[in-house]
Amino acid sequence: MSGIYKKLEVVGTSPVSLSEAIKNAVSEAGKSVRHMAWFEVVEQRGRISDDAVAEFQVTIRIGFKLER
Amino acid sequence: MSGIYKKLEVVGTSPVSLSEAIKNAVSEAGKSVRHMAWFEVVEQRGRISDDAVAEFQVTIRIGFKLER
Amino acid sequence: MSGIYKKLEVVGTSPVSLSEAIKNAVSEAGKSVRHMAWFEVVEQRGRISDDAVAEFQVTIRIGFKLER
Amino acid sequence: MSGIYKKLEVVGTSPVSLSEAIKNAVSEAGKSVRHMAWFEVVEQRGRISDDAVAEFQVTIRIGFKLER
Amino acid sequence: MSGIYKKLEVVGTSPVSLSEAIKNAVSEAGKSVRHMAWFEVVEQRGRISDDAVAEFQVTIRIGFKLER
Amino acid sequence: MSGIYKKLEVVGTSPVSLSEAIKNAVSEAGKSVRHMAWFEVVEQRGRISDDAVAEFQVTIRIGFKLER
Amino acid sequence: MSGIYKKLEVVGTSPVSLSEAIKNAVSEAGKSVRHMAWFEVVEQRGRISDDAVAEFQVTIRIGFKLER
Amino acid sequence: MSGIYKKLEVVGTSPVSLSEAIKNAVSEAGKSVRHMAWFEVVEQRGRISDDAVAEFQVTIRIGFKLER
Amino acid sequence: MSGIYKKLEVVGTSPVSLSEAIKNAVSEAGKSVRHMAWFEVVEQRGRISDDAVAEFQVTIRIGFKLER
Amino acid sequence: MSGIYKKLEVVGTSPVSLSEAIKNAVSEAGKSVRHMAWFEVVEQRGRISDDAVAEFQVTIRIGFKLER
Amino acid sequence: MSGIYKKLEVVGTSPVSLSEAIKNAVSEAGKSVRHMAWFEVVEQRGRISDDAVAEFQVTIRIGFKLER
Amino acid sequence: MSGIYKKLEVVGTSPVSLSEAIKNAVSEAGKSVRHMAWFEVVEQRGRISDDAVAEFQVTIRIGFKLER
Repeated sequence: MSGIYKKLEVVGTSPVSLSEAIKNAVSEAGKSVRHMAWFEVVEQRGRISDDAVAEFQVTIRIGFKLER
Repeated sequence: MSGIYKKLEVVGTSPVSLSEAIKNAVSEAGKSVRHMAWFEVVEQRGRISDDAVAEFQVTIRIGFKLER
Repeated sequence: MSGIYKKLEVVGTSPVSLSEAIKNAVSEAGKSVRHMAWFEVVEQRGRISDDAVAEFQVTIRIGFKLER
Repeated sequence: MSGIYKKLEVVGTSPVSLSEAIKNAVSEAGKSVRHMAWFEVVEQRGRISDDAVAEFQVTIRIGFKLER
Repeated sequence: MSGIYKKLEVVGTSPVSLSEAIKNAVSEAGKSVRHMAWFEVVEQRGRISDDAVAEFQVTIRIGFKLER
Repeated sequence: MSGIYKKLEVVGTSPVSLSEAIKNAVSEAGKSVRHMAWFEVVEQRGRISDDAVAEFQVTIRIGFKLER
Repeated sequence: MSGIYKKLEVVGTSPVSLSEAIKNAVSEAGKSVRHMAWFEVVEQRGRISDDAVAEFQVTIRIGFKLER
Repeated sequence: MSGIYKKLEVVGTSPVSLSEAIKNAVSEAGKSVRHMAWFEVVEQRGRISDDAVAEFQVTIRIGFKLER
Repeated sequence: MSGIYKKLEVVGTSPVSLSEAIKNAVSEAGKSVRHMAWFEVVEQRGRISDDAVAEFQVTIRIGFKLER
Repeated sequence: MSGIYKKLEVVGTSPVSLSEAIKNAVSEAGKSVRHMAWFEVVEQRGRISDDAVAEFQVTIRIGFKLER
Repeated sequence: MSGIYKKLEVVGTSPVSLSEAIKNAVSEAGKSVRHMAWFEVVEQRGRISDDAVAEFQVTIRIGFKLER
Repeated sequence: MSGIYKKLEVVGTSPVSLSEAIKNAVSEAGKSVRHMAWFEVVEQRGRISDDAVAEFQVTIRIGFKLER
C-alpha cells in the first residue's frame, strides 16, 4: 500500500448471512468505484419480520486507491 | 418506525456460524416477545473445545414495539 | 473457570466467511497453544480483489488456561 | 441513591426534537415501570422522509428502583 | 430496507438547538443526494462567542439508497 | 454454555467497596431471576457525602439462561 | 485557532431541553472563565420525577484560550 | 441535582485495593474542593514491583456543585 | 464556522512520519475537494518491511464547506 | 521508563474481590515473566453460582521491560 | 508514583508536527502547573488552510502531583 | 495477506517524536519476532520531566505471519 486512499461507507444486505451482506456490499460498490483494496466492518444489524431474521445489514468501510 | 420501542439483550448460540447464532437468538426470543422489529449485534464470542470452535455466542439487542 | 488465563491475539483468514476465518484461527492456534477455552472477536476486515471479497480477516483473542 | 436499581432500554420518538423524543420515552415507560429515577442517552438517530427529518429516535436507559 | 445503501457524513449548524442543526444538515444534504432514509448522530459540538453558545454543530451520518 | 441467554442490567450499591456492590447486585437480582450464570461490569460510579465516598454504585449486566 | 487552549468539564442542567442545558452550562462557566471558544458534548443524562423528565443534565467540555 | 456542576479528574493510589484508591482520591480532593457530589471511575491501573501489585492507581472524575 | 460541512475520509501515507502522512493526505485531497477547513485523526497504522517501518498510514476525516 | 516494553494480557480470578483477582494475576504472571512494571485493567467480569458471585475475573494487561 | 495526582486537559498547537504540538502544550502548561509527571494523548486534529495543514492541534491530559 | 497472523503488543519510547517511538518499537521487536507485516497504534503517552516532554511512549500492536 502506498499513495493515497479514500474510504467509502456502505451498507450491504442479505437474507442469508453477515458474510453474504458484506459480499453484496462490495460487489455493488464495485459498480461505481474502482481500485477497491480492503474493507472494515463497522456495524452489524438486521431487520426482524414474523419472529425471524428477515435481513442482515452490515455497514462496511471500503478503502480504494485514488487514481492519478 | 413511530411510537415507543423497548430493547432486549439476548445471547444466541450455534455450533455452525455467527449468523446461525443470531437467527437462533431471534427465533427463541420470539417465543416470549411480540412485535420484534430489528436487532443490533453487540458482542461476538465463543467457546473452544478440543482445539476447535465448539460454539459461537452472539449477543444482540432486539428492538420491539410496545403494544398499547 | 478458575485459576489464571492468558489471552493471545490472532488473525484468521478465509475466502468463504467470517465464521470460517474464526475456525481457521482457532485451529491454527491450537498447533502451538494448549488448553484453549474461549475466543472474543476483536476486529473484522478483509481484502478486496477484482471487485469482490477475496478474503475475510478476523482478529480474535483466544483465552487459554496456564498449566502448572 | 441506595438499594438496588434496574436499567431498562427504550427508544422514544418525536417529529419535533431530540428532547421531545426523550420525554415521550420516559412518559410511555412510566405506564409499566414504577420508581423511575434517571435516564442516560445511549443513541440518537432518526428517519428521513422527503428530504426532511420525519422522526427523531432516541435510545435511553432508564434506571428505576426495585421495590421490596 | 433492502438493496444497498451508502452513508454520507455531514455537519449541520444552527444558532438555536441541536435538533435544528440536524434538520438543517438533512435539508441541505437533500439538495445533492436522493433517497435519504435515516441519520445517525455522530458528534455534538459548538462554537462559543461572548460567553454564549453561538452555534450548535452536529455531525450526522445520512444513509441513502443507491439507485440502479 | 449452550441454548439461549438473556442479559439484565442492574446497579448494586455498597458503602464498603466495588466488590461488595457487585455481590449485592447479584444477590438482589437472584430474588427475581433464576439460572444466573455470569456478570459483566459496565460502569463504576459513586455518591460522595461530607468529603468521603458514601456509596459505591456498580452497574453490571447479568447473563441468565432462559428456561424452557 | 493557535496558541494553547485548556479544556474544562462542566454539567449544565435544564428542565426544558438538551440545548438549554448546554446554554446554561456555557453561560454559567462564563462567570469564571474567559476566552471560551468551543464546547464538545460528552454525556447526556437526566433526572426523572413523577414519571416525567425533571431535568436534562448535559456534560460538556469547554475549550478556552489561555491568556498570556 | 440542579444548578451547574464542574468535573475534576484525579488519580488516587493505594497499596491495598481499587476501592481504597478511590476513597483516598476523594478524601484528598476534599481538601481543596467543596460540595463534591459524585464520582465516576475512568481508568484502573497500577504499579508492579517485585512480582506483586505495589500500588493500585484509579482515575476518577469528581462532580461538584459550583457555589454562587 | 457556519453553513453546512461535509466530511471525507482519506488515508495518507509517508515513509517518514505520522505528520507527513497527514500532510500528504490533505494535499492530495485538495486536488479534488475545495474549501477544506479541518481534519480529525481517526486511525494510525503502518506497513513493516525488513524489520523496519516502511510506511506510516494515517486515516483522517477532512471537513470542508459545501459551496452554494 | 525508557527502552522497550511488551504487554501481556492475562485473566486473574478470585472468589473474594476484584483487587484480589488482580493480585493473583500479577503474582501468577511473575512465575514466567520478568521485569513486570505496571498493569492496566481491561475487563471485569465474573461467574455466578447459586445466586451469588462465585468468582471475580479481571483481565489485565501487564507491561514488562524487555531484557537485552 | 504514589500520593494523589490531578489531570489537566490542554490543547497544544504547532504548524510543524503532532509531536511539536505536544511539546508546546507541555511547556506552556508548565508556566502555571508544577510537578507534571506524564501526559496521555486524547485527540489529534488540525486546521487546513489553502489546501495544506496549517496547524496540528493535539489534546493531551497532563498528570501532576498535588503538593501538600 | 493470507494464512494466519499473530499480534504482539509493544511499547516503544523516544525522546524525539511519536514516529521515532514507533520506529524504535518495530526495530526492537524485530530482534525476537520474524515476518512482521504491519502495526496499529493503540495508545500514545509520555513522561514529563522538568516541565518538558522527556519521552514519548507509543503502544503498538504488531502483526506477523506464523511460519509453518
